[in-house]
Amino acid sequence: MENKNIAYFGPKATFTHEAALKYFHKNNNFIPVDRIEDVFRKVINDDADFGVVPAENSIAGTIVDTIDLFVQTKLKIYDQISIEIIQNLLSKTTKEKIKKIYSHPHSIHQCSKYLLDNFPNIEYIESTSNSKAAILVCKDPDSASIGPILCAAEYGLNVIEKNINDFKHNETKFFIISKNFVDQLKKKSMIIFSVPNVPGSLFHALKIFKKTKINMTRIESRPSKLKKWDYVFIIEYENSEIKSRNEKMLKLMQKHCDYFNYLGSY
Amino acid sequence: MENKNIAYFGPKATFTHEAALKYFHKNNNFIPVDRIEDVFRKVINDDADFGVVPAENSIAGTIVDTIDLFVQTKLKIYDQISIEIIQNLLSKTTKEKIKKIYSHPHSIHQCSKYLLDNFPNIEYIESTSNSKAAILVCKDPDSASIGPILCAAEYGLNVIEKNINDFKHNETKFFIISKNFVDQLKKKSMIIFSVPNVPGSLFHALKIFKKTKINMTRIESRPSKLKKWDYVFIIEYENSEIKSRNEKMLKLMQKHCDYFNYLGSY
Repeated sequence: MENKNIAYFGPKATFTHEAALKYFHKNNNFIPVDRIEDVFRKVINDDADFGVVPAENSIAGTIVDTIDLFVQTKLKIYDQISIEIIQNLLSKTTKEKIKKIYSHPHSIHQCSKYLLDNFPNIEYIESTSNSKAAILVCKDPDSASIGPILCAAEYGLNVIEKNINDFKHNETKFFIISKNFVDQLKKKSMIIFSVPNVPGSLFHALKIFKKTKINMTRIESRPSKLKKWDYVFIIEYENSEIKSRNEKMLKLMQKHCDYFNYLGSY
Repeated sequence: MENKNIAYFGPKATFTHEAALKYFHKNNNFIPVDRIEDVFRKVINDDADFGVVPAENSIAGTIVDTIDLFVQTKLKIYDQISIEIIQNLLSKTTKEKIKKIYSHPHSIHQCSKYLLDNFPNIEYIESTSNSKAAILVCKDPDSASIGPILCAAEYGLNVIEKNINDFKHNETKFFIISKNFVDQLKKKSMIIFSVPNVPGSLFHALKIFKKTKINMTRIESRPSKLKKWDYVFIIEYENSEIKSRNEKMLKLMQKHCDYFNYLGSY
């Protein structure tokens, strides 16, 4: 795919940017936007052909902002891509001279063992993104930031130490979103639904999966945002190789649910 | 209850502080700590008798940091308290003179309609908490921040405009945590569990609820943090007035699950 407009959750050099560059050929137009919501808006308004947004992290779990936007809009999941989250210490100075560290609080948290061992008495300044932290480091010679390798290249910083995460199995799945899903069954699919507000109604929905022998891999509830303490449910499941089973499950779910939205396969 | 040490997710004047002051008599010692994790740690180390942490917001959903800490520690839910989340515009100057707004990005998001209507061309500076934003406003005469009324009193700011949220039904539930739960069944209870990694295993767990006629009100999956893409499940349910039903459900779940933790009733 070339010459497409690809909106991603920015700024430049975030992990989402890394995911976008891994999925799409470089001969596309990559557009960083400030919020996940803005990625959806760009695709809705045809300012972008595709969007790239974080979907789930292996440690932090579901990115709920993304899930909620599927409930609020009609956008679909076109595909999925995973990348390993590797945090690095970035600076213009040497390790010994670092006096303070700018970082998103999540990144400090992910590297807390390394930071405690290597910088027990340093000043931490929280920023709202790793890219913003990198920009501050450019202006402050005795400081460092935490972030992806891409951040070093983008903002002219040196990689002082590679892979400083405490957990080494940190991976994030990103969704490629668009106005339409691909009409081809891949490994997994995702649906969002709400059930009638009577006891046993959620159980009945889950029974449909059991009956059609479709294996759920994940279930979440999210506030419906229409009524207080009212929920929608999100299920990720593995598509059966027996096509009729998937079709039957979807048909039964659609019949049972108040609201039903098939998001796509990936 | 008096003369107890109460740790809460701070800094001072957060919504969690407000919840702590609503639940506990003022003759207690209130201790603000920086992270939800630190609230749990204070209680574990007996530096606090109780902790106060956010559990669920009616718009943003489950506070996953809190849920994850119940998986990692042995702390219990002692009780629950809800407060309405009311955002206000706080400043030392008058509305006309406000040139920039400091705020947590979530608060900007929650008040975006009001801000667009009233301050279409203003500069926004993101901070990592509303209390930190209020501290910055104290030093910057032409600025304002967004936050709870308590923030105005705590940092000597004036309330320029009350209740500026876009959604008027914004409520957060907080858990009062301690080393032990109260041995008394209240309206709801919460359990955390994992099931054997075989198809249909989660369904079997949910069937136990159906069989014992216990109504689930919420279900979530969270990364187990032990193995990549492996999950634990959290269920909130309504306690049956027929005591034996609750007991039977817990007994059957304990037998079926690999890992099972009853958190308490509230």
